[in-house]
Amino acid sequence: MPDDRAMLQVALEEARIGLAAGGIPIGAALFAADGTLVGRGHNQRVQLGDPSLHGETDAFRKAGRQRSYRGMTMVTTLSPCWYCSGLVRQFNISRVVLGESVNFHGGHDWLAGLGFEVVDLADETCIDLLGGWIAANPFVWNEDIGVS
Amino acid sequence: MPDDRAMLQVALEEARIGLAAGGIPIGAALFAADGTLVGRGHNQRVQLGDPSLHGETDAFRKAGRQRSYRGMTMVTTLSPCWYCSGLVRQFNISRVVLGESVNFHGGHDWLAGLGFEVVDLADETCIDLLGGWIAANPFVWNEDIGVS
Repeated sequence: MPDDRAMLQVALEEARIGLAAGGIPIGAALFAADGTLVGRGHNQRVQLGDPSLHGETDAFRKAGRQRSYRGMTMVTTLSPCWYCSGLVRQFNISRVVLGESVNFHGGHDWLAGLGFEVVDLADETCIDLLGGWIAANPFVWNEDIGVS
Repeated sequence: MPDDRAMLQVALEEARIGLAAGGIPIGAALFAADGTLVGRGHNQRVQLGDPSLHGETDAFRKAGRQRSYRGMTMVTTLSPCWYCSGLVRQFNISRVVLGESVNFHGGHDWLAGLGFEVVDLADETCIDLLGGWIAANPFVWNEDIGVS
């Protein structure tokens, strides 16, 4: 059984890599049922000018082609937005572990209602890291979540 | 007012570009309210080994950073899957025009229920192009829609 808090540390490392490159500090990672790391990534809106790369979609992309996501866990520093929640639903990624849902509340309740296993770790480090960044960068943040 | 069938031709061109490169023939394009093309793209699972690039997400990526998607139309040769429907919801892309929903039925009813404008053109060319491809490539197709 994978350790959710240990997996979250990988997502947090990714968020900090993004932050160091001037990006939005959100990271994610995809783990197999046995705890093997399959892919990891972070938001790259600012660095690459690519709005399609949220933490979750970057981790998914880095994982490459997979025949099945059964038993896998997507761990992310932040509640997955609708785009990333849709990714989880379409590809049947069994579990979602989120660092926090204070700074943003996406589609994780929807996923839980559909039968996906969802764990919110309410991690203070995740809350503080992104919260501080949003306070300093409200316009880029709104762009990333589609708020005009 | 943009012409939905003319916009669909751009998505179809993209699907054919993908097909010619050995890929899954699904294309999409993003248009501004005045009919200006903002981005166009196609599924690139096979060509780039990138499962994150569906037609819609590739068009979205190619459009680069945008402050708002208000009034924009995402035209796609196929009903958007949950991943791509989530993209439309999160970024408030006002309209979705789909070529067909016979070969696959994704989240477009969900989007319509949420107030997005959805038009299904039930285009025979789109149905035949993808239908023939799926019949010849069922395993890659299932991988692309997350069916184990």
